[in-house]
Amino acid sequence: MNTHDLWNRYQDFLFTDEATGVSVDISRMNFDTAWLAAMEPRMSLAYAAMTDLEAGAIANPDEHRQVGHYWLRDPSRAPDDATRRAITDTIATVRHFAADVHTGKVPPERAEKFRRVLVVGIGGSALGPQFVAHALGNSTDPMRLYFLDNTDPDGMDKVLGSLRGTEGGLAETLAVVISKSGGTKETRNGMLEARAAWEAQGLHFARHAVAVTGDGSDLYRYATENGWLGTFPMWDWVGGRTSELSAVGLLPAALQGVDVEALLAGARAMDALTRVRDTRKNPAALLALMWFYAGNGCGKRDMVVLPYKDRLELFSRYLQQLVMESLGKERDLTGAVVHQGIAVYGNKGSTDQHAYVQQLREGVLNFFVTFIQVLRDRGGPSPEVEPGVTSGDFLLGFLEGTRGALYDNGRESVTVTVPDVSARTVGMLIALYERTVGLYASLVGINAYHQPGVEAGKKAAGAVIDTQKRALGALRACKSGTAEDIAKAGGIDDVESVYKVLRHAAANPDHGVKRVSGARPGQDVFGLES
Amino acid sequence: MNTHDLWNRYQDFLFTDEATGVSVDISRMNFDTAWLAAMEPRMSLAYAAMTDLEAGAIANPDEHRQVGHYWLRDPSRAPDDATRRAITDTIATVRHFAADVHTGKVPPERAEKFRRVLVVGIGGSALGPQFVAHALGNSTDPMRLYFLDNTDPDGMDKVLGSLRGTEGGLAETLAVVISKSGGTKETRNGMLEARAAWEAQGLHFARHAVAVTGDGSDLYRYATENGWLGTFPMWDWVGGRTSELSAVGLLPAALQGVDVEALLAGARAMDALTRVRDTRKNPAALLALMWFYAGNGCGKRDMVVLPYKDRLELFSRYLQQLVMESLGKERDLTGAVVHQGIAVYGNKGSTDQHAYVQQLREGVLNFFVTFIQVLRDRGGPSPEVEPGVTSGDFLLGFLEGTRGALYDNGRESVTVTVPDVSARTVGMLIALYERTVGLYASLVGINAYHQPGVEAGKKAAGAVIDTQKRALGALRACKSGTAEDIAKAGGIDDVESVYKVLRHAAANPDHGVKRVSGARPGQDVFGLES
Repeated sequence: MNTHDLWNRYQDFLFTDEATGVSVDISRMNFDTAWLAAMEPRMSLAYAAMTDLEAGAIANPDEHRQVGHYWLRDPSRAPDDATRRAITDTIATVRHFAADVHTGKVPPERAEKFRRVLVVGIGGSALGPQFVAHALGNSTDPMRLYFLDNTDPDGMDKVLGSLRGTEGGLAETLAVVISKSGGTKETRNGMLEARAAWEAQGLHFARHAVAVTGDGSDLYRYATENGWLGTFPMWDWVGGRTSELSAVGLLPAALQGVDVEALLAGARAMDALTRVRDTRKNPAALLALMWFYAGNGCGKRDMVVLPYKDRLELFSRYLQQLVMESLGKERDLTGAVVHQGIAVYGNKGSTDQHAYVQQLREGVLNFFVTFIQVLRDRGGPSPEVEPGVTSGDFLLGFLEGTRGALYDNGRESVTVTVPDVSARTVGMLIALYERTVGLYASLVGINAYHQPGVEAGKKAAGAVIDTQKRALGALRACKSGTAEDIAKAGGIDDVESVYKVLRHAAANPDHGVKRVSGARPGQDVFGLES
Repeated sequence: MNTHDLWNRYQDFLFTDEATGVSVDISRMNFDTAWLAAMEPRMSLAYAAMTDLEAGAIANPDEHRQVGHYWLRDPSRAPDDATRRAITDTIATVRHFAADVHTGKVPPERAEKFRRVLVVGIGGSALGPQFVAHALGNSTDPMRLYFLDNTDPDGMDKVLGSLRGTEGGLAETLAVVISKSGGTKETRNGMLEARAAWEAQGLHFARHAVAVTGDGSDLYRYATENGWLGTFPMWDWVGGRTSELSAVGLLPAALQGVDVEALLAGARAMDALTRVRDTRKNPAALLALMWFYAGNGCGKRDMVVLPYKDRLELFSRYLQQLVMESLGKERDLTGAVVHQGIAVYGNKGSTDQHAYVQQLREGVLNFFVTFIQVLRDRGGPSPEVEPGVTSGDFLLGFLEGTRGALYDNGRESVTVTVPDVSARTVGMLIALYERTVGLYASLVGINAYHQPGVEAGKKAAGAVIDTQKRALGALRACKSGTAEDIAKAGGIDDVESVYKVLRHAAANPDHGVKRVSGARPGQDVFGLES
């Protein structure tokens, strides 16, 4: 196609909405209108499914749960008064609590005011708050957020160490522990290590901690029994990866000083745009169709996400979670084995242009690109870096240049444009992709709201911990031996796991294990430190 | 296979080296020994090519360049005295300069000492230093590193703002501007915006800046003409993505307080291990073969990189650049069109387990996993989070559990184990993967050392900047009009680009453009602010 035809195609297929300032450009995907028309019956079913979901149908059949993240920003759509009240009450409680923390009305044990926040959470309980903190954080914020999002001891030491190094240190730090089930091991471990750090300074952790968790969970009980500063609810009708606009995301955001009403309003506005049943006028419908087109409805192409804005760098990772955990499923809703999903990766442009765009342009054609463009360059005017040209002009140049160079080589892309990076647009982006994922899941007939595969890894991890206990017990009984000796003594079948836990134990001071290495793993001899 | 057979396979194929503490486990890739034997003739050619490369052959034929990153840590292997001297002199200069900065012998204009560093660079001139800073940084370091790695105005404001907010601010910040060619626009823009920030505080940028760049480049001339504090060399026989152990990486590392000799020694030790021509005893050869096996020699499978260690989180991104920019090529060495490459993504475990491992376990099978394990949990002993169990035991449990749960579902993986995260192991990891990329490139017959596809994007970006200049000129002449009017007046074919640059100009205060939106882009009317 020549530039004239491309300009027409751009105009023909551009979704644009003046009120929100959002546009979605699908002109560089090579579908034709016949394909679009042929997809319409499927889209109708997807719209219908979405209407049912929003009205409170059991849209997560495996877990027999409602899916209510759309109600969070429009409680009037919730199916009953109790749910409506729970949502509005929680928003109010979050805002009041944050205000009281900011003014010092909720003070720490031994200082006037909390000055920073340590969020302890993982996956759906960390990525949303991290994305929002990175996108909207400024040096003038009332509180800065830190995160424990793993069970890596050294990683925790690093974060807790840098908190101790701040003015006021842990004594002025509020811990927000987030776990829907309350049973996530990484989060529990993070909480316990954090508690130990506070206690090492003679501080009561309870006087510095709040929880966001399901009613009656282990974490809920622990927090209430120990007199924490408060608990905020998580509901079973909100999944972790769609929980940014529940207390999970709103509490850290409010503490950071983000306008949470604007976040909610942005999401609400986008929900209104993406509820439209006219496909050409629904940006989420267009995106879902493009995902289907790119990957032939079975994830044949990876989605490379390239936000041309430093503040949106974590949006790629946020989408990686939202898309892959929602869509990466073995079975469809009929139970047939389908191995669905879309692999998502990316960081930011134009930086990634100097990393892997070489492969995108010339290498293996197993992807399509999503460009995210932000129209506003910065708060004020820009200096010139060449006569009549600003740094932001170059950023646009690189985006358009890359989009064009890829297209010239048969690499397709969509471009989502937002006016700025603000609480409102962040809310819009979150809602846009939540809806896209929901519609795409309908198009390919899967349940986007469960994650059965996560359980297997957790179970297997539990088995390794169990193997460790038994192997250490056996080693203590027989004093020394190879992994095979210890496995036999402990009645453990899986010798490799025994070897792994003993090798790890020998590399650390905690279990008093030592290792003398042999020619191959089976000949390593493990013993006890005297 | 049952656990007994798996344990035997694990032992049979494990590469392990006691001196470095590194092991590479390929037992969860389902190749057989016949396949391994069949690959041996290709491996022999790869070893021979690597020997030639290390001896100074023109291993980058398109650019007619030698490829010398292995010489950086073992100058005795460089092909001539001048090169040897250049390497050793540069290492000495870097170390002395860093020491002089730390003691205040090289002071800033108006303070006693430099206390932090702003690195300005992108791609190969940023990712290595970022990875090393993240992996080895501590709160006790003599200097902390900040980065400008894009041409995003707001992103630069954020970094420069946080530098201004530190004690001592820009007056105590040393800028390290890194650009091999000296012509990279993002880096030039970053440097110009940084200079403006220093000047806004009445400070001379030159008294706070050094350059790392090729001899005689634009940046070299600029730095010397303006009397910067110093320049450090970049050589045409070192590619950006393999430049971490040249001044590009060593200078920031030395300033941060990293033991650069240990970095170099680690790389040198790994080079020795990966020079071995016995495939079963060469960890890079084994990895290269697994890449070939996984993707059938044509990148059919993505590589998901999962370091189970917070400090190695950026290693995934470092590898993304190293692998994709090196291997993502349209043509092989014979000129045939092959569209090679391997897509790489990942962040860290066990965090990613709560993000996308759902898809890895159950979804589309288009990947293999590289686990990176670190044996040492933390500096000292760990508290118990359960009786007899530490956070680090859980980290191991999640790694092994995920590896097992994936394998049970037919998902293959390799595991690289290192003893700790130190300058030495970081050097080893960099060298391990540089060699793996080189060997794999030989296996599939491509040039891993050029990046012809990057040029197209840059050229296209230049065309957009040019379009902007002409469109703004035309708009100023005709006062107002649609994109089509302006394009016509400016003699520009590509109306869509005209629309894009004017829409962007209207969203920012710099060019005095305003926009009145119409029903579709072609009906938007652009004008001039009065």
